Amino acid sequence: MADMRNKILVLICDGMGDRLTNGYTPLEKAHKPNFDYLASQGILGIMDPIAPGIKPGSDTSHLAILGYDPYKYYTGRGPFEAIGIGMEVKGGDIAFRCNFATSTPKLVIKDRRAGRISEGTSLLAETVNNLEIDNIKIMFKESVEHRGALVLRGEGLSPHISDTDPHRDESSVLEAKPRDNSLEAIKTASIINKFTRLSYHLLSSHPVNKERQQKGENPANIILSRGAGLVPHLPSFEEKYHLRGAFVAEVGLIKGIARLVGLYAPDFPFATGSYDTDMKQMILTALKLLEEYNIVFVNIKTCDLSSHDRNFEMKVRVIERIDEAITPLKDFKGTLVITADHSSPISVGDHSGDPVPLLITGDVRKDIVNTFSERAAARGGLNRIRGIDLMPTILDLAGYAEKFGA
Amino acid sequence: MADMRNKILVLICDGMGDRLTNGYTPLEKAHKPNFDYLASQGILGIMDPIAPGIKPGSDTSHLAILGYDPYKYYTGRGPFEAIGIGMEVKGGDIAFRCNFATSTPKLVIKDRRAGRISEGTSLLAETVNNLEIDNIKIMFKESVEHRGALVLRGEGLSPHISDTDPHRDESSVLEAKPRDNSLEAIKTASIINKFTRLSYHLLSSHPVNKERQQKGENPANIILSRGAGLVPHLPSFEEKYHLRGAFVAEVGLIKGIARLVGLYAPDFPFATGSYDTDMKQMILTALKLLEEYNIVFVNIKTCDLSSHDRNFEMKVRVIERIDEAITPLKDFKGTLVITADHSSPISVGDHSGDPVPLLITGDVRKDIVNTFSERAAARGGLNRIRGIDLMPTILDLAGYAEKFGA
Repeated sequence: MADMRNKILVLICDGMGDRLTNGYTPLEKAHKPNFDYLASQGILGIMDPIAPGIKPGSDTSHLAILGYDPYKYYTGRGPFEAIGIGMEVKGGDIAFRCNFATSTPKLVIKDRRAGRISEGTSLLAETVNNLEIDNIKIMFKESVEHRGALVLRGEGLSPHISDTDPHRDESSVLEAKPRDNSLEAIKTASIINKFTRLSYHLLSSHPVNKERQQKGENPANIILSRGAGLVPHLPSFEEKYHLRGAFVAEVGLIKGIARLVGLYAPDFPFATGSYDTDMKQMILTALKLLEEYNIVFVNIKTCDLSSHDRNFEMKVRVIERIDEAITPLKDFKGTLVITADHSSPISVGDHSGDPVPLLITGDVRKDIVNTFSERAAARGGLNRIRGIDLMPTILDLAGYAEKFGA
Repeated sequence: MADMRNKILVLICDGMGDRLTNGYTPLEKAHKPNFDYLASQGILGIMDPIAPGIKPGSDTSHLAILGYDPYKYYTGRGPFEAIGIGMEVKGGDIAFRCNFATSTPKLVIKDRRAGRISEGTSLLAETVNNLEIDNIKIMFKESVEHRGALVLRGEGLSPHISDTDPHRDESSVLEAKPRDNSLEAIKTASIINKFTRLSYHLLSSHPVNKERQQKGENPANIILSRGAGLVPHLPSFEEKYHLRGAFVAEVGLIKGIARLVGLYAPDFPFATGSYDTDMKQMILTALKLLEEYNIVFVNIKTCDLSSHDRNFEMKVRVIERIDEAITPLKDFKGTLVITADHSSPISVGDHSGDPVPLLITGDVRKDIVNTFSERAAARGGLNRIRGIDLMPTILDLAGYAEKFGA
């Protein structure tokens, strides 16, 4: 086995932080000897993924945890929707969130969600993918149900244009309009308007829609766009830290962000993003990757699933399964970080702005806390830091920090 | 004795913060009744000199502790190298790090370090000090071995020029080139090129070099420059805080920074910067200065020395000697701060980004911590602050803060 002493493993238990249900958090209720053993060997604290009380998305929190200030680099839902469904976007692209909708030939929207279409969207998407308008490459990919994302790539584009989505039925499709007087915005609006009309032209006669109409369902015959955003130019992780990194992630959004900063983040069939995911295999894969990479991140999604389901007992069970999965980490000799990207309280059923517990083992000032939980961590030796402070902290502990000054 | 109630004494134990060696930090192992007594009388916390995980230099950390944001005022190694060796620089000067090197008459570098020359450099330096080229004053001073610093003073200069140091042997001396199109950069590059040729002219026939050549040693016959930086225009301490301050420091860099912001910081022969320094005398001098000044800083270097030597036992002994030296502070009636400018863990042998312990006595919310150590401080009532927050905190406690708002 490779020498792990200056390797870094960051385990992010998605949505693990919680509030109290009948007086306890799921972490406090779970039987988790491995988490607690690691707590007894390390230093703990609480971490605001963004800032106190700010309710993070998984995108903004992961940017911060990777050391990219989300206030600088988070450029809206469009780019991160495209990233999340696995589109290969790059810095400078313009991305939009989209709906398949049902339109009349006069471009009046009858149903913004095309009957919440659930089948055939990948065939429809192929029809409007890989187009070119005025030398600009157009990429489209379907997401779940009627949703999708659109990416424009080429010279002289701008995200400063308005939506074509009228945001209600029985309204005309809107003309995208430039939001400033730049040639780039004028050009981008023009391309989007051409694309919208072209999508109606290409989709209205598509076999999937013919079949829907025969079944009395609303055809998905136009694509509405909204939330234009510039895909940020991020300095790569290797440029920024001079370290080679990898990410074992389950869901598209996290893999997409990892790839956007140049981390090695392949698809692993055992990392499903559902309750059936193989967490033990994820941990073993991370350890294997550390033989080649300096730092490996892991995002395990299961806690967040049970929080969105508001299922306290399930969250406790999931934590106990993660505890089982991390058994090999008890012997890890490098710098180990265990934390969450945000809290997802059962009482909220969604993300919250509560800080998350943070545990670091390695060459650290081991503190008196011997339990891994939100409230125990708040008494730990790290006190309270922010997500953006995590990378400098662990790089320093692992011996990679460069001196600021002399 | 003067009324000390609104006086402030800030004791900076350079590099005192540490990590664990066999389970304990040097502070935890030391017998230090005075530190612990003061802890029992005060409020504690941990402080990130710059920000969590950022590994500070002594220069950047002292700027922050004095209340000057290092991200704004730290302008590179050149100026702080010159400050560190005791050159009297002022805002607007351009400063460079330099090497004595061995050159051929055709200005090809044979040895970038002139045989790591160790004697005679002050005589050589005199020869190229206090010159004037194109109405610009040129100051040069030697540092240790082949090193030195160069300062240009006058109107119309710029730090945006390239190095003359080729950074390897058997290469020609580089022409300094302007890095932008400003007249200032063009002029500064021209002066540096003239100085470089002049240094060869003045040094190659110098008796020190004649003697070196007779002994078969490489002559130190040219000065190479690098890392041009603008000496920052810092608002003076008195302007900024309306308080008169002094600094009892041992080493050039700290005295230089203190003088740059207008603090009274003379040379004290008993403050040597080595293990033989008289720490008790430093404390007594600070107390004496407080009769005249509102605030006095003290920097004691010994902890950092033992950390760079990676000598745990020596660091423990040094802490015990500081404890002895601070006996008179038990009766101090004003606001007393005891902290460090950065951690220097034995396990690292250099500065680190770990937070430092911070103790304040005076009109404070005395907490339950009765021990002065890194881990005890992390449980204190101040929690975790940054270096830049220290001055506002202590000015407020000592009654000097101005209200922000009404």
